[in-house]
Amino acid sequence: MLIVQKFGGTSVGDLDRIQNVANRVEKTVQAGNDVIVVVSAMSGETNKLVGYAEHFSKNPSAAEVDMLLSSGERVTASLLSIALNEMGHPTVAMTGRQAGIVTTARHTKARIEKINPIKMRNALAEGKIVVVAGFQGVSEEGVVTTLGRGGSDLSAVAIAGAIGAELCEIYTDVEGIYTTDPRIEPHAKKLDMISYEEMLELSSLGAKVLQNRSVEMAKKLNVNLVTRSSFCDAEGTLITKEENIMEQPLVSGIALDRNQARVSLIGVADRPGIAADIFNTLAVEEINVDVILQTVAHDGTTNIDFTVPMNEIENAKNIVKVFVDKDEILSTDFNDEIAKVSIVGVGMKSHAGVAAKAFTTMAEENINIRMISTSEIKVSMVIEEKYSELAVRSLHAAFELDK
Amino acid sequence: MLIVQKFGGTSVGDLDRIQNVANRVEKTVQAGNDVIVVVSAMSGETNKLVGYAEHFSKNPSAAEVDMLLSSGERVTASLLSIALNEMGHPTVAMTGRQAGIVTTARHTKARIEKINPIKMRNALAEGKIVVVAGFQGVSEEGVVTTLGRGGSDLSAVAIAGAIGAELCEIYTDVEGIYTTDPRIEPHAKKLDMISYEEMLELSSLGAKVLQNRSVEMAKKLNVNLVTRSSFCDAEGTLITKEENIMEQPLVSGIALDRNQARVSLIGVADRPGIAADIFNTLAVEEINVDVILQTVAHDGTTNIDFTVPMNEIENAKNIVKVFVDKDEILSTDFNDEIAKVSIVGVGMKSHAGVAAKAFTTMAEENINIRMISTSEIKVSMVIEEKYSELAVRSLHAAFELDK
Repeated sequence: MLIVQKFGGTSVGDLDRIQNVANRVEKTVQAGNDVIVVVSAMSGETNKLVGYAEHFSKNPSAAEVDMLLSSGERVTASLLSIALNEMGHPTVAMTGRQAGIVTTARHTKARIEKINPIKMRNALAEGKIVVVAGFQGVSEEGVVTTLGRGGSDLSAVAIAGAIGAELCEIYTDVEGIYTTDPRIEPHAKKLDMISYEEMLELSSLGAKVLQNRSVEMAKKLNVNLVTRSSFCDAEGTLITKEENIMEQPLVSGIALDRNQARVSLIGVADRPGIAADIFNTLAVEEINVDVILQTVAHDGTTNIDFTVPMNEIENAKNIVKVFVDKDEILSTDFNDEIAKVSIVGVGMKSHAGVAAKAFTTMAEENINIRMISTSEIKVSMVIEEKYSELAVRSLHAAFELDK
Repeated sequence: MLIVQKFGGTSVGDLDRIQNVANRVEKTVQAGNDVIVVVSAMSGETNKLVGYAEHFSKNPSAAEVDMLLSSGERVTASLLSIALNEMGHPTVAMTGRQAGIVTTARHTKARIEKINPIKMRNALAEGKIVVVAGFQGVSEEGVVTTLGRGGSDLSAVAIAGAIGAELCEIYTDVEGIYTTDPRIEPHAKKLDMISYEEMLELSSLGAKVLQNRSVEMAKKLNVNLVTRSSFCDAEGTLITKEENIMEQPLVSGIALDRNQARVSLIGVADRPGIAADIFNTLAVEEINVDVILQTVAHDGTTNIDFTVPMNEIENAKNIVKVFVDKDEILSTDFNDEIAKVSIVGVGMKSHAGVAAKAFTTMAEENINIRMISTSEIKVSMVIEEKYSELAVRSLHAAFELDK
């Protein structure tokens, strides 16, 4: 079996941990597998280099930053390769360029355009373990680029897709994907499997294990993704096609996102297209609007409520102020003491009772639902932040996720 | 004027010093010059990375070591480029690959085969300062290589030669080349100019400012080389063609090499070709034999004395033991308490009195000369180590180098 294994910053945080990674790779090889290892920079290293750059400039050139930061992963890849050699395994360490990773030229936020896996394939054919510096590639012009946050995960998934690996394992410091955050609900259970779609909902809803970019690419390239811990031997969670999951549970998990703020527009003018104007302006400024609620009061005035990520609230305030100044909105209200609780599961597609059960559960706990948003595989409810944990635990129990 | 400036590890030892280098580069640019800057890794960085590699293996793979070590210079180049940007200067940071440096594939000890300066030329034409990561290149196969000790100097000289720079300035922590070591003779004077040939003799005789590889390349490519300090504004020493030096002094400098040991072979068998056998065996083992003295005693026995670098004395012992075991040498003696004092100057080519004056000076100080070796531009004398400083000072005064 051909396996891509990716180890993040904490997994390669010091020399002993790099040795630990080497031992784990050896085990995988000894079990008869071909292995490509993708590594991040040693934890702290990237921040140190960013700090160096910021010593000289508040706004350093992105091309220079890429050349600077890409050195971190090269160090880890070389060291892991040396460790594996010492254990008697032939290896080859590769930079992003050597691994054939071609990206757009957008420095610090490049996108992978294609992977030419010929060098990796040749090395595997020679019986070598391939160790790749993650997070980096080269533009068509041959200049080093980096892939932005979660870049090494992306390198691993893209390589697995390009070379047709059976499995892409992402090693972090958590054991996998849980039915909900175990710090809130100690009875949370680790999932054996979850579909790409559910994972995308869960991570956009605050589960931090994987970035959506990586899951989306895994889905697109049909890569079987496993998240597991580099610090223990427990099996992780397989993220795969819906069809591959034999027994579809009704609900897979409960997600909590505290990082939302609510914007309330009170007394919106009765002009055709005004809502479109407001949301277009927000979209142009790249503000991610999530749940939207429009209500018409008895007296005919229209109110519009919506949520935005907390760090975009100031931008949102400036934008709606323009409409207030034009007398198209009577007044505004902002509230960041809200949270979004979501129930995610592909099973609910064919089962109407999930929303009803969720509302009943919240009512039983006297939790007011301020806003609701649903998709085929998700029910999200915006509530007061102080009820967050209670809501998560009640829903977790109501849908029997602890069983 | 197009100038290549190279800054070594101590000159870029911390962020403040990198800023200092940026200021110096700016001055050169403001004086109307085009500049290519070549940088080493921040001092200590390379040793740290070597230590990391050695944590995993006593004998790490050379290709991996090259990928590891080459990251150090990339960090410095990116940071210097960012610092110059912040000061308002357009720049481009280049790896060895991007600067077009193609080397042999011999990892950790690669030789520069050719330089394709097209990217550097284009950047200069666009009015940019080019910042190059020294010490590294790529093989024809596109794998990262490093150039070994003194590699960044070599990068700078080779670039200056390939692109036809008027000057290649090597910045270190000393102000230039002195008539002798100022720690021994406080009256030592900094030389304004010196020929390549003299510099080669001086550095092989213990002056540590420049490695012979770099001076040889400068000579071959006809690069005007200047060594100067990055910590003060004093003019350095120009190393150039003999023809460029208007006033040839008789003697340019006195060099001292304490790093030599003497091997004495007593009672060498009277067999034709035996001396050739001994020195061939030493050459095969890459032991650098320097001064050689053959004497025939009254009773007809032959003695051979020669010097080798201190760190090769054990190898030399093992080799001569083979001849002792074959009864071709009666006995051996080894002495590492010797020193070699040398007088260097192109002027002595046309002046016979230098050796005589040297011997007279030594006799006046009651210093026994154990061995003598001369070349067109050098007289070397092996003496007891304890007389080293006295010999240097006496010769320095005798040849009026303090005037």
